[in-house]
Parts: sequence; C-alpha cells; structure tokens
Amino acid sequence: VTVPDGPAIRQALVEALERGDLVLVTGGLGPTSDDMTRDVAAELLGRKLVFDAQIMSKIAGHFARRNIVPPELVKVQAMVPEGAQVLANDFGTAPGLILEKGGKALVLLPGPPRELKPMWENQVVPWLKRRTGSRSPMAQRSWRIIGVGESRVQELLEAPLKKVGDFEFGYCSRTGEVDFRLITENAASLKKADGFIRSQLGEAVYAEGEETMEAVVVRAAAKKKRMIATAESCSGGLVADRLTNVPGSSKVFGFGWVTYSNEAKMEELGVSKAMLKKHGAVSEPVAKAMALGALRRSGADLAVALTGVAGPEPGSREKPAGLLWVALASRKSALAVKKNLPTDRETYKYSASQVALDLLRRELNKE
Amino acid sequence: VTVPDGPAIRQALVEALERGDLVLVTGGLGPTSDDMTRDVAAELLGRKLVFDAQIMSKIAGHFARRNIVPPELVKVQAMVPEGAQVLANDFGTAPGLILEKGGKALVLLPGPPRELKPMWENQVVPWLKRRTGSRSPMAQRSWRIIGVGESRVQELLEAPLKKVGDFEFGYCSRTGEVDFRLITENAASLKKADGFIRSQLGEAVYAEGEETMEAVVVRAAAKKKRMIATAESCSGGLVADRLTNVPGSSKVFGFGWVTYSNEAKMEELGVSKAMLKKHGAVSEPVAKAMALGALRRSGADLAVALTGVAGPEPGSREKPAGLLWVALASRKSALAVKKNLPTDRETYKYSASQVALDLLRRELNKE
Repeated sequence: VTVPDGPAIRQALVEALERGDLVLVTGGLGPTSDDMTRDVAAELLGRKLVFDAQIMSKIAGHFARRNIVPPELVKVQAMVPEGAQVLANDFGTAPGLILEKGGKALVLLPGPPRELKPMWENQVVPWLKRRTGSRSPMAQRSWRIIGVGESRVQELLEAPLKKVGDFEFGYCSRTGEVDFRLITENAASLKKADGFIRSQLGEAVYAEGEETMEAVVVRAAAKKKRMIATAESCSGGLVADRLTNVPGSSKVFGFGWVTYSNEAKMEELGVSKAMLKKHGAVSEPVAKAMALGALRRSGADLAVALTGVAGPEPGSREKPAGLLWVALASRKSALAVKKNLPTDRETYKYSASQVALDLLRRELNKE
Repeated sequence: VTVPDGPAIRQALVEALERGDLVLVTGGLGPTSDDMTRDVAAELLGRKLVFDAQIMSKIAGHFARRNIVPPELVKVQAMVPEGAQVLANDFGTAPGLILEKGGKALVLLPGPPRELKPMWENQVVPWLKRRTGSRSPMAQRSWRIIGVGESRVQELLEAPLKKVGDFEFGYCSRTGEVDFRLITENAASLKKADGFIRSQLGEAVYAEGEETMEAVVVRAAAKKKRMIATAESCSGGLVADRLTNVPGSSKVFGFGWVTYSNEAKMEELGVSKAMLKKHGAVSEPVAKAMALGALRRSGADLAVALTGVAGPEPGSREKPAGLLWVALASRKSALAVKKNLPTDRETYKYSASQVALDLLRRELNKE
C-alpha cells in the first residue's frame, strides 16, 4: 500500500495492523513538516515521544562530518516512541524504529534506498530471523530468459513442470525478456525443474534470481580472462555504464568510447569517411568497423559496437527510429546483427545495450 | 495498492471500488496463467467475456511484424468483458479496457511501461478529461534543489511562504538533492512563491517539475551553442549515457571516453605516466589532465572528467571508497572539485554523474 505523506498514513497503518502481525513501513521519518509517520505510529500504539540524546549525538556527528551545523528541525528525528527498539542509521539521520504491542510488530524504516537497504539487511532481517526462526516454509527459484516470449515460455514449461512438482507459476515480461518463477513447498523439486527448464530453453536462460546480464558477462569474461571494449553511438555509454556497475569490472573492462558524432567515429575508431558516406553511420559495415577499431585501439579480446536510430524523431524510410546494428569483434572474426526496436528513447537504449551484452555472453560461452 | 498476480486481486478491486469512483489498474492482462485481472474484473461487474475478432487481428499483426506465429495462449487477450470500451495497444498485445457500472469506472491497463505510458497519455487522459471536464481544481508546482538539505530548505522557505499563500508543502529528499512541492487552490500565488524561492536559493534551484539535470544541461548548451565532451573513469559512461537520454543531445555532444584503466587514460586522453605514478589515478592533477585531454581530442568547448573510488572495496586510507575528483575544462580554464560520497556503488556513480552535470550547468549559466 502506497500512501502520500499526510493524514492518510493513519488509516493505512490501522488497516495494515488489522491485516497482519508484522507491518513494514518505509519513509515519512524525515525532519520536514510533511513527515508524520513517527508521530502517527506513536499515537496509534499509545506511546509518548521522548528525546533520545544518543540518537541526537549520532545525528550531530552526521552533520559534523559534512561540516554543516545541524538545522534546528533535525532534532525531531531524535524523538523516539517510549519502549521502541532503535535501529541505528549509518547512512543518514533518521533511525529506524520497532514498536511491538499485543503480538503485533510495526517496523518503521527510512525511505531513501541508501539508508533503507543496509538497515534492512543488517538489522531487520536478523531481528526477523530471531523472532520467527530462520526456517523458510516456501522455496522459490527464478530464471531470466531472453529472446523467448512469455506465452511461448508457458507453452514450453508449464504443463511438463506440473508433472515434476506442485508449483506456483509466475511470469514477468520485460522488453524482449521474461522472468519465470516457481514457488513450492518442496525445495528438492526445484532442482529437477531447473534441469528441465535448461533442457528446453538452453542458452536463452541467461541468469537466475536477481543476477543481471552485465554481472553474467563480467563473471564469464573474468573466468576466461578476456578483456572487453565498447564502442557506442546510439546507446550513448550505457553498455559501459552497465558493465562498470559490476564490482570487479575493472578486471575485464579498460577502454570504452562514446562516438556520438561521425567525427568521433572517424577520429577515435578509424571508421573511414568513404564508408560513412556510402553506407551511413547506421549500417552493418560501420558497426563492424567501430568494433574492429575499438578492438585494435584497446588491445582487448572482444569489442562490441552499437549504432542506430534512437528517436524520438522518426528517422527515414530506410532507417526508421528503432533501427539498430550491433557488431561483435573478436581476434578471429566480426559479426553484426540488425534489430528493430521501435519504442521510446530510453527503452531503446536499454534494449540495445541488452542485445550487445547478450552477444558478448553468447560469445564468451562459446570460447 | 500493490498486489501480486493471484486471487488477492479480487479483494483489492472490491476495496478500491468501495473507496472511489474511478479505479485505475495496471498489469495482470498478459496471456500467462498468472494473469487474472481481466477475468476477475469481468466477474466482479457481472460481465461475460466475449471474443473480439478485431483485437485478435491486431494481436496477430503484432506477431506477424516480428515473423512469429502467435502462440495459442495469446488468444485470451482478445477476450473482452461485454460492454467494455477497448483501448487499442499500439506497443504490445493486451488491449486496455474501461468498464463502467453505476457511476463507477474501472480502467484496466497493461503493465509494461512502454505499453502503459502511451495508452495513458493518448487514450485514458483524453477520456478522463471528457468525462470530468478539463478544469483542474488544484494547482501544483515543484522545484528541484541541489546542494541544500531538506531541513534547511524548510527553514528557508516554509514560514515565509505561509504569508504568500495557502500551500500544502511537500519535500522529497534524494542523494544531495531535495524536491520541494507546493499545492494550492490559488494558482496565482505559485508565481509569487516561485520568485521568493529563487531569491532565497538562487542557483541551487536547477529545474522545475520532472525536468532532469541532463535535460537542463543539454538545453543550456544548445542555447549557447557549446559542445560538451566527457572523460569518465569511476562513473563508467553514466554521464554520457544521461546526456544522450535527452532528445537532441547530438547537437551538443559528440565525443565521450570511458577510460577505466590507466592505459586508457594515457593512450586516449594523453595523461602522462609520470603524473599517474606520482599522484595516482584518483587525484586532482589526473582529473584535470583527463578533462583537458578530452577537450583537445574532441574540439569541444567544455569537458568534464571523473575519477574516483566507487567501491565496494574499501580503498586505502588516503583514498577511501567514496572519494571523487571531478574536473571541468573550458577553452579558458580548468577547475576540479573533490567530493566524498561513501555509499553503494550505483548510488556513488549516480551522485558522481550529478556533480559533473551540475558543474556543467553552473559553467553554462555563467558563460
């Protein structure tokens, strides 16, 4: 349930406490006038707010490290409902709070993800495990599938898997991809399911759980000790950005180019003026020349290059918005694939980067 | 209210129809076994599902353009509750549906954003306007503020603005930024508020509404006819990626480098081996040399360079994870700023890119 800052929070908390024994709340603990979750929760459970000097000294330290005098307002974040368990916030000012009453627990957590995530992992999950026992009654496993539509995934998997175990099936469709999820009480049946899924879908299964395509590529390149280079036009640096989101990517990635203009393609990657004139920047020969130029300039083992028409301008009849050429060059060969991704600009860029990363993945699987 | 695919949808629809006269639903219209929103909605409103040949031919066309035989399962998406208004889906297979009964309306929309957004803008909003009249009873305006904390924003603005008009105040804190929002019945008072806010915060106000920092930078550079180049190490291409998310960015951006390794910094940007040895890659001289190298190689008017320690490895005592140097070079001068952003890797990269874009913005404001 999502509610705006304001009085609707009270109603939402009342309903949630009726619905379950554990209520997790994020946000609304800030210092400004619209943040009222702390007050409403204290009032609902009949607790007074008391000033906590230890929290205040932690908040003062947070500002001191940034050489800022703490504004008067932040003191409200040191007010704690009586009897609450305080969860220290190492990445911001508002502490988390656990309030328990009559077998029910209300857990208030800060909204900003950089504060919320470590508090959840380091403090709330251990508390939950202590409180509930660590046994998980349901087992879950999910697979990330590229290049097969969700209807086709269901046709291939659902009926046969019903013979393997008693599963709840989940499908989440993204651009060109499907997440397929199984939930069951029998964890052992998931292993058999995994074997069947991979036998049916092969390389289309690119990851499990939350693992990203870029993490798969970096892991495979590190294992095979291959260096990757990128040469990007239409994707504007997104492939490099995604690769460098992966910790340890510096072991497999050293050089990337964003050659947005024709001049950059010529000067930085050695694409010839004649080729650009004859075929245009968005073409198979230019994509391959970009990849080969990046390979040569970087000394890497593999290079991907992307050139296309991202839109929103409609492009031309031969080269409409959505057109994409992606090339992959290795020491031995170069190939290029053409795609048509008519969508908004950011989805286009993301899809293009996914095509490039998937080409790298399949090449690294082969090598 | 967010509910998983499954029977909980029924309860959520019942509650929502009690709570309001207009219920907007997204997702659960897909072809797979977990998609049951269409069925549940039809049953709740007492409508039979009937096959719509026109929708089926549209779905068949969607697959035909991709040279795929439509799987049997997709036919369920051509089933329409009797009397429903059908919203064509130009970017996918599931049409939207509007069901009206007894003064209440239930609007079912597809979940994937690339399908949802155009359907919302082109079909649902016009329908809502026809149905409700186009008059908006409340006026809203919001400002994006960088480098001033939310408590300080409230201290500077809230009390004085209470004398300007009858406002509802909203604050949303992000890394190093605050969105400040005013809602009022008196649209004229927003103009006065805007003048006051800008007089108090000056250049810290970088945008209004949903406009992004990168859009502000591209707009300013286009207006002043300046070309921008990027040289990125720790941000891994994210600055270039963000700039190229803006339609028309090719007018102001031609060359970007992702020099992740020291070799790339030397070979592509002309940073000297001696400098790297003496100061290390994460240093003021190297940041400036990267920016100057990018400026020289690209022929641009302005270049930004980023070098830092993204983590998650803790780094060293002198150069801990979170350290960032950003340099800005123009034809006339070069400057560098140091930041400490101890956070997770992706937040670090985003914050670093924001620092770089903000330096560009302030420089373009000056020129």
